[in-house]
Amino acid sequence: MEKKAIIIIGDGMGDRPVKELGGFTPIEIARKPNMSRLAKEGECGIMDPIAPGIRAGSDTSHLAILGYDPYKYYTGRGAFEAAGIGLDVEKGDICFRCNFATVDEESFVVVDRRAGRIREGTKALAEALNGMVIEDVKILFKESVEHRAGLVLRGEGLGHNVTDADPHQEGVKVHTVEAIDPNDSASQKTARIVNEFVRKSFDILRNHPVNIERKSQGLPPANIVLPRGAGTAPHIPSFLDRYHLNGACIVEVGLLKGVGRYLKMDVIDVEGATGSYDTDEQAIAKAVLSALETHDFVLCNVKAPDVAGHDGEALKKVETVEKIDRMLGTILSGIDPQNTFIVLTADHSTPVSVKDHSGDPVPIVIWGEGVRPDDVDCFGERACAKGGLGRIRGFDVMNILTNLLSIQEKFGA
Amino acid sequence: MEKKAIIIIGDGMGDRPVKELGGFTPIEIARKPNMSRLAKEGECGIMDPIAPGIRAGSDTSHLAILGYDPYKYYTGRGAFEAAGIGLDVEKGDICFRCNFATVDEESFVVVDRRAGRIREGTKALAEALNGMVIEDVKILFKESVEHRAGLVLRGEGLGHNVTDADPHQEGVKVHTVEAIDPNDSASQKTARIVNEFVRKSFDILRNHPVNIERKSQGLPPANIVLPRGAGTAPHIPSFLDRYHLNGACIVEVGLLKGVGRYLKMDVIDVEGATGSYDTDEQAIAKAVLSALETHDFVLCNVKAPDVAGHDGEALKKVETVEKIDRMLGTILSGIDPQNTFIVLTADHSTPVSVKDHSGDPVPIVIWGEGVRPDDVDCFGERACAKGGLGRIRGFDVMNILTNLLSIQEKFGA
Repeated sequence: MEKKAIIIIGDGMGDRPVKELGGFTPIEIARKPNMSRLAKEGECGIMDPIAPGIRAGSDTSHLAILGYDPYKYYTGRGAFEAAGIGLDVEKGDICFRCNFATVDEESFVVVDRRAGRIREGTKALAEALNGMVIEDVKILFKESVEHRAGLVLRGEGLGHNVTDADPHQEGVKVHTVEAIDPNDSASQKTARIVNEFVRKSFDILRNHPVNIERKSQGLPPANIVLPRGAGTAPHIPSFLDRYHLNGACIVEVGLLKGVGRYLKMDVIDVEGATGSYDTDEQAIAKAVLSALETHDFVLCNVKAPDVAGHDGEALKKVETVEKIDRMLGTILSGIDPQNTFIVLTADHSTPVSVKDHSGDPVPIVIWGEGVRPDDVDCFGERACAKGGLGRIRGFDVMNILTNLLSIQEKFGA
Repeated sequence: MEKKAIIIIGDGMGDRPVKELGGFTPIEIARKPNMSRLAKEGECGIMDPIAPGIRAGSDTSHLAILGYDPYKYYTGRGAFEAAGIGLDVEKGDICFRCNFATVDEESFVVVDRRAGRIREGTKALAEALNGMVIEDVKILFKESVEHRAGLVLRGEGLGHNVTDADPHQEGVKVHTVEAIDPNDSASQKTARIVNEFVRKSFDILRNHPVNIERKSQGLPPANIVLPRGAGTAPHIPSFLDRYHLNGACIVEVGLLKGVGRYLKMDVIDVEGATGSYDTDEQAIAKAVLSALETHDFVLCNVKAPDVAGHDGEALKKVETVEKIDRMLGTILSGIDPQNTFIVLTADHSTPVSVKDHSGDPVPIVIWGEGVRPDDVDCFGERACAKGGLGRIRGFDVMNILTNLLSIQEKFGA
């Protein structure tokens, strides 16, 4: 039988000692028999997702853990977000994150940057904008959750060094997009196209039935699109081309689905995977086991610990760790232990004391036939730091895995 | 007295836990009082020869351990093999590995790719080919062990991106060498020269006295040379230029002798060093001690653990470790401990369960006056992972050594 591998990532799961947890971290204090079984039977270490001290995003960290140097391949989140909402992004496309917003129809002053956090009707609004052509540039546009959307410009001679149309505050006029360097004619072209797109979005959306309905209900109309954060879609070799592994990606949030889609992995949606505290970890576990039947490799990310970290909720974060432990238990009971490797780690720390991503390293365990078990018998930031793996980087993980899977070319003779 | 250093490399000595050894690795289970003395008195760690998880060859790993980044300097094994059999390789030479083979004299179909694994007479055959000039290109050709040989083309305007003359199977005609890119005129020139060399090898060898004798004995004649694996000889600064250390290289196999010769180290042959289980480790120890009298630095590689790893022979691998331990004991009793540093490590793991090189890290100990002894008192993969060196890379070793030797330039003020 072919050997297979699963990487399980508790998003933002790493933390610092927390006073209200008696000086333990959420992972350390959690009841986690399955994680600690992995630690006892596997090889432990600490991992810097990017490099020691570097505060990683989820996108850059997942790229690194999948073996793609983010300093080489990451050109901003725009391309991954666009891919994540289902836009078909190609190398060289210029990608933007967008808001549906409300502007005063006379003055173009932004009244509400989120159009009342609109939830209903954005699909129809997006469809009214998608597919237009401005000059020789094709416009791809798609709604995301709530007031968010993605914009892709596809055409020749486009640059990405442009300012935002989104003024990032209310009470001021929509900004005119400009090339950051006035001599950069490719970015000038992009600026021209985006400005025209913003104007057209207003023309098309202001009297769109969705907005007529909203106005009649006293809701702010989503009468303009405000792009921001331009980035060029990078060329990234597919996961299959790189590793000859048929990979599945079971993740909850759009940005990470975008990373998976970008690497041409099979991105599998799981009903009940909410990306929050109430996510159905058993549904995710079953999806992982099911994906493993048809794939060599599964990447699984559970978002909840990161949510708790951002919320600053220590006890809730403990519960998210215990949730992931239960998920792991179901996975462990369904795999062939002789032929499956499991990596359990986090993509970064999101300490509850910081309420944001931090550059603290995360614990990691690699489990499966052939690893060198060490003395560590408990999963956690400080326990794993004593393990046999020592201190590694996110970028090392796939090299270590392809070595264990015996699918790596030898370098030299 | 000048301080000196010895690097002792048990080739492929690293391993994974082995069931038939009770879950220990061959190093862990071996009786190794001298290795463990080094561990107890020295500073231990684990080492990735290249980088975590990367499967190193012996050539790339030795380059790295000697401080030469293989990603910068390694252009294939051809140049090192050619240097290893005693060909004088220069930067820009195009090097090939070759077989003496048997072809049907009418059809040029390869009958035996190894000419009956010819052992006798290849020196005379090689001499008949060495030194010829084709166009403006000088041909260097030398026999290696059995049916193997090395070919070097020296001249202007030669490329290395060419296909093999060796069809890599029997029953088919000798391949015509071609430039991989038809627009690469330098490689086209190489292809033309090699094709002419192959033709000439047939003309010269078919009726060579060695082959007349072989035919009379019913043996397949070595009537053609089949080159393969073209590579350009890289420019590599000599060991002396790089470190101002007068270095000796006591290694058993041709490829590593080639690395030593390439770095212009003194490559010392040892009688009784067979590169296999029966190697005379006491002869090697004495050669190391003797070399140390006239050199600042000695690199010593013992091949046997790698052989046992490739053979999948756990108990034999244990014995090879014990052999190296006895060698180390003799070395320890012959050096000046106040003025000698010893590094003991492996160039890669060759787990008996894998029967090939793996990307698992290897244990390392650095011993001598001035290191910081740690708590590790036993040499082995997992014991050393707890040591004070932490997890380092092959490339770090010479920097650590030149620091201890107090011969390193300060970087900065």
